[in-house]
Amino acid sequence: MTTISAFGDADGALTVGGVPIDRLAHRVGSTPFFAYDRRLILERVALLRGLLPDRLSIGYAIKANPMPAVVHLLASSVDALDVASAHEMRVALDTGAEPARVSFAGPGKTDSELEQAVAAGVTIEVESFGETRRTVRAGEVVGVRPRVAIRVNPDFAVRGSGMRMGGGPQQFGVDAEQVPDLMREADAAGVELLGFHVFAGSQNLSADLLAQAQARTVDLVLALSVDAPQPVRYVNLGGGFGVPYFPQDKALDIEAVAANLTDLVEGRLTPALPESSFVVELGRYLVAEAGVYVTRVVDRKVSRGSVYLVVDGGMHHQLAASGNLGQVIRRNYPVAVATAVSAEPEETVTVVGCLCTPLDLLGDRVELPRADVGDLVAIFHAGAYGLTASPTAFLGHPAPIEVLV
Amino acid sequence: MTTISAFGDADGALTVGGVPIDRLAHRVGSTPFFAYDRRLILERVALLRGLLPDRLSIGYAIKANPMPAVVHLLASSVDALDVASAHEMRVALDTGAEPARVSFAGPGKTDSELEQAVAAGVTIEVESFGETRRTVRAGEVVGVRPRVAIRVNPDFAVRGSGMRMGGGPQQFGVDAEQVPDLMREADAAGVELLGFHVFAGSQNLSADLLAQAQARTVDLVLALSVDAPQPVRYVNLGGGFGVPYFPQDKALDIEAVAANLTDLVEGRLTPALPESSFVVELGRYLVAEAGVYVTRVVDRKVSRGSVYLVVDGGMHHQLAASGNLGQVIRRNYPVAVATAVSAEPEETVTVVGCLCTPLDLLGDRVELPRADVGDLVAIFHAGAYGLTASPTAFLGHPAPIEVLV
Repeated sequence: MTTISAFGDADGALTVGGVPIDRLAHRVGSTPFFAYDRRLILERVALLRGLLPDRLSIGYAIKANPMPAVVHLLASSVDALDVASAHEMRVALDTGAEPARVSFAGPGKTDSELEQAVAAGVTIEVESFGETRRTVRAGEVVGVRPRVAIRVNPDFAVRGSGMRMGGGPQQFGVDAEQVPDLMREADAAGVELLGFHVFAGSQNLSADLLAQAQARTVDLVLALSVDAPQPVRYVNLGGGFGVPYFPQDKALDIEAVAANLTDLVEGRLTPALPESSFVVELGRYLVAEAGVYVTRVVDRKVSRGSVYLVVDGGMHHQLAASGNLGQVIRRNYPVAVATAVSAEPEETVTVVGCLCTPLDLLGDRVELPRADVGDLVAIFHAGAYGLTASPTAFLGHPAPIEVLV
Repeated sequence: MTTISAFGDADGALTVGGVPIDRLAHRVGSTPFFAYDRRLILERVALLRGLLPDRLSIGYAIKANPMPAVVHLLASSVDALDVASAHEMRVALDTGAEPARVSFAGPGKTDSELEQAVAAGVTIEVESFGETRRTVRAGEVVGVRPRVAIRVNPDFAVRGSGMRMGGGPQQFGVDAEQVPDLMREADAAGVELLGFHVFAGSQNLSADLLAQAQARTVDLVLALSVDAPQPVRYVNLGGGFGVPYFPQDKALDIEAVAANLTDLVEGRLTPALPESSFVVELGRYLVAEAGVYVTRVVDRKVSRGSVYLVVDGGMHHQLAASGNLGQVIRRNYPVAVATAVSAEPEETVTVVGCLCTPLDLLGDRVELPRADVGDLVAIFHAGAYGLTASPTAFLGHPAPIEVLV
């Protein structure tokens, strides 16, 4: 299983950051916990650095995993940070990241958030005419000229995305055809108008479809740039690089994606927009596969012929793994007996969390080696949209610890 | 709309606990917030008191809404509290409730939780042989005789439940056919064996199906009682009373349910088990309809012909309303412009939350009166499985306030 081999193992036990999982559990002091592997995150960044053109910056969308240590690690290894709330902005700035390297996107920014963003000097990716006007007012309140990019809702949709966030009517961004009017208005209102953000969808595993989307994004950016009242200095091409969650998923052909981006950045964007920076914004792709959720077997029971492992974690920490975060069809995330990752499967078991609801299902009829009370069970792909995307207060269990190893 | 009429209105604005919503928003001091109506909760209890037999206790499953003020209110108006974690147990005991009136259910109770429960003197509803043995050990550690009831996985399934939690193989409870063996073992180990808990499913809107399930539950309890080594003093019949969330849902015929329960308790249970208490355990039914989630419009935008209201709340507070908590098909919870509940609808709008994800959808193409930035939008049915069942840390927005009015 590639998932386990990426982390490594020692004496039959999973390792994270080189530490055997039972020792790590002792170090953490309680289960369940999330462990993120520093090496795997940095290897992913290095992979991208080796493939992407120098001129293309890598941004980290910290919503994927806002653990401060993870954000610090990425702040020092990628070029930009994207935030989606005032709290995330503080986490980003606390790393020492230059405000000019921080972008703030998302619909529904409040007046207070806009004022904080203006005061911080980050790039505000405005999502509507109304938000642009409120940003202008925030600049007046704070007495600082707002730095603005326009988030564009493209006039095309991307196929193959796990979540579509562009094309047709959307709550995200300004419809492409309205952008020239908005640029004129924003320029006249005195904001610093840096450029554009186009984000059309997330979790795409098709290099071809991503390449098509990126090419159309470049078409759109170049067309919009003609009407730009100020030199274009910022182009955020979005991201949407998917990761394989399930056995039938094929990993994204990142070489093909990078080759296409190289052609677009070097062949089209740089000549046309020489003053601009270009950024791909990635969240899940940088961290999802570097995380594991570790939970301990509390009960092993047989009910009418079915074996259940009841663990001390559950959907309150890993909602996505339970199939309740946007999935239409529930599939199992990769799961392993963490202290016996080299052992052959010997039984079919259902792994359930400790919540008193049938929704709390972590592994439905999975093949595993024998596990008993006290053993550790690992759920993979827990590095992104895990803890913070889960209902941690549900049923009042203690919050899990996170460690970056 | 019955939802709004239950709360009431004044000068065209929704009221909660008799307080106009805009005044309540000022009192709370920030949006979004949850407001629970004390009167509606007490009216629901009074309705049940008037219909159910005196001999049948009402229990509140505090997982539905563990806000301490709500739990206090119900602790003083119902007969028993059910908890699903050590934290919920503390909330229950903090109300001053007698430990004997508190039951602790749920798979995956840890050794520490079992020791806390034994020390507290609450009734532990054991879910397996293993958990029973660990409860015996907890009693030895604490030096107190455990008070135990056996949660039974029935040998039948209940049709019509939103979530099935009994019948076939289950992580919940002990298979009915194994209960006699477990009773002998538990009795021999010296625990106080009080009786049984049978909970077959939740969110059932059919009085007929509930009546069938209750009759079969009574059959099962009476059959198991024959083998009980100690007098049966506790029978928890479960609950599963549903509430109507959507326009096509028909409210549960509570009179029919109560009449059936009266027949069962007076005609069958009391004569057979004269020393026993009997309890129905309700969560959602007591509180769901008494709560409203109030959020403010931050942006109003038109994208390619569609009107979007972007509000400062979202799925991070009301996951169920976004359709991401176990629903197979997403439907809109009732939604209203809270400051204009008497006004006629005049447009079709989509209400989205402030999170940067298309999952954050609160009202998909709903008919509403005109709402602008600053107006309050209310999402109903927010009294149960709302705040604590939602990923509050997602994207790092501030936690909402809860008020009981």
